[in-house]
Amino acid sequence: MASLVSISAPFSLRVLSCTSDHSTRPRASTTLPTSLALQSLRTQNKGLSLVWKPKRCHLIPSIQATAIPLRQEASTQPTSGSNSTSNGAPNRVRVMMIGGDGYCGWATALHLSQKGYDVAIVDNLIRRLFDHQLGLDSLTPISSIHDRVRQWKNLTGKTIELFIGDICDFEFLAESFKSFEPNAVVHFGEQRSAPYSMIDRSRAVFTQQNNVIGTLNVLFAIKEFQEECHLVKLGTMGEYGTPNIDIEEGYITITHNGRMDTLPYPKQASSFYHLSKVHDSHNIAFTCKAWGIRATDLNQGVVYGMRTDETAMHEELSNRFDYDGVFGTALNRFCVQAAVGHPLTIYGKGGQTRGYLDIRDTVQCVELAIANPANPGEFRVFNQFTEQFSVNQLAALVTKAGTKLGLNVKTTSVPNPRVEAEEHYYNAKHTKLIELGLKPHLLSDSLLDSLLNFAIKYKDRVDQRQIMPSVSWKKIGVKPKTIAA
Amino acid sequence: MASLVSISAPFSLRVLSCTSDHSTRPRASTTLPTSLALQSLRTQNKGLSLVWKPKRCHLIPSIQATAIPLRQEASTQPTSGSNSTSNGAPNRVRVMMIGGDGYCGWATALHLSQKGYDVAIVDNLIRRLFDHQLGLDSLTPISSIHDRVRQWKNLTGKTIELFIGDICDFEFLAESFKSFEPNAVVHFGEQRSAPYSMIDRSRAVFTQQNNVIGTLNVLFAIKEFQEECHLVKLGTMGEYGTPNIDIEEGYITITHNGRMDTLPYPKQASSFYHLSKVHDSHNIAFTCKAWGIRATDLNQGVVYGMRTDETAMHEELSNRFDYDGVFGTALNRFCVQAAVGHPLTIYGKGGQTRGYLDIRDTVQCVELAIANPANPGEFRVFNQFTEQFSVNQLAALVTKAGTKLGLNVKTTSVPNPRVEAEEHYYNAKHTKLIELGLKPHLLSDSLLDSLLNFAIKYKDRVDQRQIMPSVSWKKIGVKPKTIAA
Repeated sequence: MASLVSISAPFSLRVLSCTSDHSTRPRASTTLPTSLALQSLRTQNKGLSLVWKPKRCHLIPSIQATAIPLRQEASTQPTSGSNSTSNGAPNRVRVMMIGGDGYCGWATALHLSQKGYDVAIVDNLIRRLFDHQLGLDSLTPISSIHDRVRQWKNLTGKTIELFIGDICDFEFLAESFKSFEPNAVVHFGEQRSAPYSMIDRSRAVFTQQNNVIGTLNVLFAIKEFQEECHLVKLGTMGEYGTPNIDIEEGYITITHNGRMDTLPYPKQASSFYHLSKVHDSHNIAFTCKAWGIRATDLNQGVVYGMRTDETAMHEELSNRFDYDGVFGTALNRFCVQAAVGHPLTIYGKGGQTRGYLDIRDTVQCVELAIANPANPGEFRVFNQFTEQFSVNQLAALVTKAGTKLGLNVKTTSVPNPRVEAEEHYYNAKHTKLIELGLKPHLLSDSLLDSLLNFAIKYKDRVDQRQIMPSVSWKKIGVKPKTIAA
Repeated sequence: MASLVSISAPFSLRVLSCTSDHSTRPRASTTLPTSLALQSLRTQNKGLSLVWKPKRCHLIPSIQATAIPLRQEASTQPTSGSNSTSNGAPNRVRVMMIGGDGYCGWATALHLSQKGYDVAIVDNLIRRLFDHQLGLDSLTPISSIHDRVRQWKNLTGKTIELFIGDICDFEFLAESFKSFEPNAVVHFGEQRSAPYSMIDRSRAVFTQQNNVIGTLNVLFAIKEFQEECHLVKLGTMGEYGTPNIDIEEGYITITHNGRMDTLPYPKQASSFYHLSKVHDSHNIAFTCKAWGIRATDLNQGVVYGMRTDETAMHEELSNRFDYDGVFGTALNRFCVQAAVGHPLTIYGKGGQTRGYLDIRDTVQCVELAIANPANPGEFRVFNQFTEQFSVNQLAALVTKAGTKLGLNVKTTSVPNPRVEAEEHYYNAKHTKLIELGLKPHLLSDSLLDSLLNFAIKYKDRVDQRQIMPSVSWKKIGVKPKTIAA
């Protein structure tokens, strides 16, 4: 009855065996459950740390006798991944990056590793499975997570640990926690597409179950194994909806019938995905109060951009670029459409206004949150975006930038597949991260460097069948649906 | 990956075979999955209706050629379970009662059946399994659901259909919908105990998964099969928490920085159970907006009382009375403690104030909601309680009533197992149901008739080991816990 809910999504993982001549040729290909944890090969000896040893054997994790520096629990104001012990010796802050193979997670994992944090990626790689199942692909080719971390080690000498498994499987998550002992957990590990959650009933249920139960498990793992650990949870600006008053950062002070209180800002999410993040926020707030969990909820806007300092270091570190109707954003879609000469497709009236930020700011924001942790029992909410644009404004910016590059950019309106206000008031506060030191990049500067240029570079990889909306908010049904581009 | 989440909790169901001499002796006892649906024996013929035929064979559902009156979709102001067709002939409103074997569900099912509604109970009976697993029992003996509906038929001639299965199993739910074609769904079918949800991680996860996914499935079933069907969903006053301003009915109008909007009232739930209802409310509100679902969210207070006109008709129709530390309420616990001479156990300071209502008002409120349905696309919230009391006030009322009966009632304070404010402002609005016609019963009148007298009548069945709190909000852990009274 009281069962552990776990999604078992078998996927194919190359298993290499390391022979005496250090050959890296694949020896077998087999299907393993997602909960396969590489760390299962590790000993329980706390003095040993698993690292990749790329020069001897590329894909087999092995045991290396590396002394782990004595660590302190996360305290105030660590900077650049180091902390100090009572005797002044530097300690490295250990950050578990759940969903570290995804778009935001991968860029953030590299950024934090570069900044001197000890980083472990926890990921079941299901985002890659979604692409297979829906017939989609990133515009940019991306390497396997194994090749990614190996290349990172080659280039920088820095190790990123890998825990491959599903956080809905609590046993896997518990072992990852006990092994890595994180000071901070950055939780990007959710199904993050609104259209995906609106494909059919099973995807709606999957999204809520996966996101809510995964986050519950993270909260329980922190309480049980690392109670001082700071949870940095990725929420979304979409939790607020589009109210007719200013959007505050998480809380609003209300005077009502002569009395006053500061309460959680009312939520009006508009997809099963956005709703799952609302549920998470409520669950996390409760555990902060009941258990003293320290948490930061980053209500992130729409992220754009391919390039961070770290992903730009090598093609094997390249990030994904989604432009399809399920995982792509309007801005990415517009850039690809401009590159291939397709009219920019504006959903409905195009007055839909949201907050946006460059991925270089995402990685900054997460670092700032980790470096300035919430207090025990504090549920802190930051609105994580830098600029507001309507869809029509995005189209105008892409048109202008495309024209500069000699492209002939046109726009067209298509029926809105979503149920949302197409003209509305929108003014969302976003000062808390600026106060912590965020230096924003601006879209007008990034558009050419980090978006349109990639769209043009990879335009031969564009599959135009993926561009148009394939999911309708009103037509979602109970029968499993196969999206075919 | 995108799997249908289903809890399979095998339970034992007596299966009787109906022989030619109409014997009712059990012929076999076997274990069947909860999703066994009695209606699977039904034909697909729309002109046939399944009824119990108690005189010939007590427990075998059989097919009877009963013409179902032509029904209209639920429209405005049906009363007493009848509707009118365009030619003036009465139609019976069909109400699916999910969780109809539980405390509120059973009383409501009988009340609506008595009022002329066609009622079907959908229940997986898992509430009975919880008692077995936790070593608990209702103070009052309760009959099996099969005996209950049979006795109801014997006494009144009215049939209540049974669909035994789990609404998290969408195939089961879909078949129930297609078979019964409800005009209204009353959804009591959730894990409804805050302490239960705080026993251990697996119960916390179960509660949220069961309640959220079950409700999602109901929403999808309405959209797919009965789009005019009115959802009457049981929420809880606990969704609001204890804000320092007045609690409104679902929405609050906020003036902020010179602008105004009416937004969902901010939620601050204080257990994984209460949070699950917050999640449900958000999910339902979204589907009203996106799909045009018509829904009423009844944010119910703490229900007390054993007796309704219908459950009082026969001992086999008797309702349950929970006084234990997991499912019992403070008021029930106090009544039992008074009856057996145990001091009334007040958690902490006893200033915790909540809304309360008599179960005779619960059944009235549900009937009023059904008779005055929400409009398509409307998400309507009613605060369903009649009076506010603090725990200390309840103790004083029970002490006074007990003294009248010659009992020697004392009180004692015990450490509060919950994390909650023990002294706080509380003023919650509750006018909408009154405006629809609710005539409240008052606790001061009901205490002797419907609570203390039952506690005294059944005091030999009291298991005093069940009285004390067994679940701690702070001590909940990840290991499965066996509660032993």
